[in-house]
Amino acid sequence: MSHVLDEAIAVTVGEAGVFHATTHAAYANMVGPFGGITAATVVHALQQHPDVLGEPLALTLNYAAPIADGDWDLHTEIIRTNRTNQHWVIRIVQNGTTVSTGSAVFGLHRPTWGSTEPRPPAAPPVEEVAAQGFPDFIAWANNYDMRFVVGGLNDGASDDSTSTLWLRDVPERSLDYPSLASIADSFYPRAFLRHGTFMPAGTISLTTYFHATPAELTAQGSDHLLITARGVRFGNGHFDQDGQIWSGAGDDAVLLATTHQLVYFKDPQ
Amino acid sequence: MSHVLDEAIAVTVGEAGVFHATTHAAYANMVGPFGGITAATVVHALQQHPDVLGEPLALTLNYAAPIADGDWDLHTEIIRTNRTNQHWVIRIVQNGTTVSTGSAVFGLHRPTWGSTEPRPPAAPPVEEVAAQGFPDFIAWANNYDMRFVVGGLNDGASDDSTSTLWLRDVPERSLDYPSLASIADSFYPRAFLRHGTFMPAGTISLTTYFHATPAELTAQGSDHLLITARGVRFGNGHFDQDGQIWSGAGDDAVLLATTHQLVYFKDPQ
Repeated sequence: MSHVLDEAIAVTVGEAGVFHATTHAAYANMVGPFGGITAATVVHALQQHPDVLGEPLALTLNYAAPIADGDWDLHTEIIRTNRTNQHWVIRIVQNGTTVSTGSAVFGLHRPTWGSTEPRPPAAPPVEEVAAQGFPDFIAWANNYDMRFVVGGLNDGASDDSTSTLWLRDVPERSLDYPSLASIADSFYPRAFLRHGTFMPAGTISLTTYFHATPAELTAQGSDHLLITARGVRFGNGHFDQDGQIWSGAGDDAVLLATTHQLVYFKDPQ
Repeated sequence: MSHVLDEAIAVTVGEAGVFHATTHAAYANMVGPFGGITAATVVHALQQHPDVLGEPLALTLNYAAPIADGDWDLHTEIIRTNRTNQHWVIRIVQNGTTVSTGSAVFGLHRPTWGSTEPRPPAAPPVEEVAAQGFPDFIAWANNYDMRFVVGGLNDGASDDSTSTLWLRDVPERSLDYPSLASIADSFYPRAFLRHGTFMPAGTISLTTYFHATPAELTAQGSDHLLITARGVRFGNGHFDQDGQIWSGAGDDAVLLATTHQLVYFKDPQ
């Protein structure tokens, strides 16, 4: 039996770099699909391309208009393949209209010096943190086990927009690049946490840097990830937020991805 | 007499959304032009478009291949204009080859609740910090007065890749969106600071979020900016670094832009 994430990111190969995809009810958001599942579908499709080089390193998606429920086409183009990296541009088209644009960099992981400057956030073991769901009208969140250490949706207004949580897919699923791309967009808009309430908000532009090597993904398996995000500047109808996806909380924790997004918002009424 | 930055970002308007630009020797980097001046030229060109909506909010540029000295064409396309924001895709073409791709979001600044969570880095007044040049073979750096508080290029290897510096254009020039786009890419690769030496490195993908309102740019004038950057995860041939552009160091300092990039590197020999 296939995992619901695999159903949602399934694509069929068309002609001339086009892939056909379909929205999945299990990953619906308030308006259109959850942006993370769109990102995951893009990563999954590019991985299927016969000319792909290596693994995803960077992905930017611009959400120009909501994707309607139903079929959509992903137009992909390889701009340039260098010795160790490859540049893509992509476009999501639905009923003849471009609803999202983006770019991706894939590449080879070469052995070099390495270092990670930030440390993972402090967190008790996953077993000691209670699961906390999102409201039922946010369908996609039901596909994640979320255990908020700080900054849960029900915690009320806060002067600090940090959320830190343990998270994994439900049902359990081994981490791969598509699921990592989805999880990178799983942080709810930081303005909700500042105000302790929902308000109109939506991602305009999302950029994720994939640090995980294939071996690090394999080592992670389906264990809970420790993920954290914080808003930066809010104002004039927009804000940005930064996130980190960690393999765990220990001294040996690996930073698997970093992610940034610009979000549109309206003041709560 | 025009400022050297204005000479470097000058464009002429072609047909069908194409702008013609030319590299400028004063903003040369080790290989090809300084990425910041390319970003500034893109922002400047989009601002000249008759159908532009508002001001820049987000810019992503993917540097697929070096731009050669000489003329280049910027192909621009408006994907969608919403009520308060506008999505663009762009392509830089030289001699028939796409050397860079990217996307931009422009938009209106609407009055809303606002807050900035990070604070500016600690720094003595600009008058108390000595100017520190880059080596002469990095031409573009001569167009900036740089006063490193921490993390100068000559400071040797460090376990912390943070650079914080006061910076302004030379000659002085009032801040605008193009110059802000350029300054957002003015942080040298953080791997140099970790190793205390140059090594092969180049930006692959750059994303900048513009928080500054037109009024904030006017208030800044040509005063020194306080800017700071730090590397995140280094390894497997790549690293990412994050930067902030502040109006100054005081309690009333404004966060004018945030910036992120993925960088290719090779180990020093």
